Amino acid sequence: MPGGIVWLTGLSGAGKSTLSAALAARLAPLRPIEALDGDDVRTFLSAGLGYSRADRDTNVHRIAYVARLLARHGVLVLVAAISPYADTRQRLRELSTAAGHPFLEVFVHAPLATVIERDVKGLYRRAQAGEIPSFTGISDPYEPPPSPDVEVRTDRESLADCEARILAALTARGLISA
Amino acid sequence: MPGGIVWLTGLSGAGKSTLSAALAARLAPLRPIEALDGDDVRTFLSAGLGYSRADRDTNVHRIAYVARLLARHGVLVLVAAISPYADTRQRLRELSTAAGHPFLEVFVHAPLATVIERDVKGLYRRAQAGEIPSFTGISDPYEPPPSPDVEVRTDRESLADCEARILAALTARGLISA
Repeated sequence: MPGGIVWLTGLSGAGKSTLSAALAARLAPLRPIEALDGDDVRTFLSAGLGYSRADRDTNVHRIAYVARLLARHGVLVLVAAISPYADTRQRLRELSTAAGHPFLEVFVHAPLATVIERDVKGLYRRAQAGEIPSFTGISDPYEPPPSPDVEVRTDRESLADCEARILAALTARGLISA
Repeated sequence: MPGGIVWLTGLSGAGKSTLSAALAARLAPLRPIEALDGDDVRTFLSAGLGYSRADRDTNVHRIAYVARLLARHGVLVLVAAISPYADTRQRLRELSTAAGHPFLEVFVHAPLATVIERDVKGLYRRAQAGEIPSFTGISDPYEPPPSPDVEVRTDRESLADCEARILAALTARGLISA
């Protein structure tokens, strides 16, 4: 089965990692799969990078480089990373496609008010208090995908429903068997 | 066939990349293989890092993280990187082994006088002129492996002979079929 990249973009707290982990667990018995989580990857690949536009771009380009290496060997790679800039994501799509790997952009969408209310890690409270500079959605931009391959609304849809729609898109692209 | 890591260490100009490319070409028809070259990887994963001990260690730990991800999916990963510190290489071996991936340290050995004479990239001349600080072998240490899995002497052995001995070690470890 061919490799590919599923790029989950969205605000902190939107549910990217949760969805990625659920998909990885579901797909692991079916095909080679790897989940790269933005937070984990920062530890291993991008320690020392900050949250300027340039550093954010460097970070996601590193993740995408690793994802392409894995995709080349038939792995479906799930990436959960805020990746706030639309043209950077477009560039990642181009690089992936040029390398022959399908690229699905999944917009993990929850309104800012929802993620602020959830505030699972307490980061929004701290960002609003000015304790975290360049925090996406508060003091740094998030550019929603104008035409994502899949958009899930984690404030209105169940996790199972979000999963099912991504799985359908993967099936349609020949990345999992029907 | 299981994944694994073949770590080629040695001075700049010793022949690591040449050997890695030859092995990759030879093995590609036989099994999943990926060659990660220190110079290339620096561009993608480690731009901004320098040549202090800490930065060198960060660089090789990043390469090794990527190598382990690939090995997890059955890829034999050839890494060509100076990786001058013996205890760092030992740590990489431990991390790989703990993750269940065989790790072969290959000492690509040519005497300093030989690589200075070859000076394929003109770097030794510049380093000796003081134009490149922290250059391994000139102004920065290289710690030879005390007990590498394979040692090849690129100043005395042909490329084919060096290759053959590494292939024999891979066969002995079950990483390629006899």
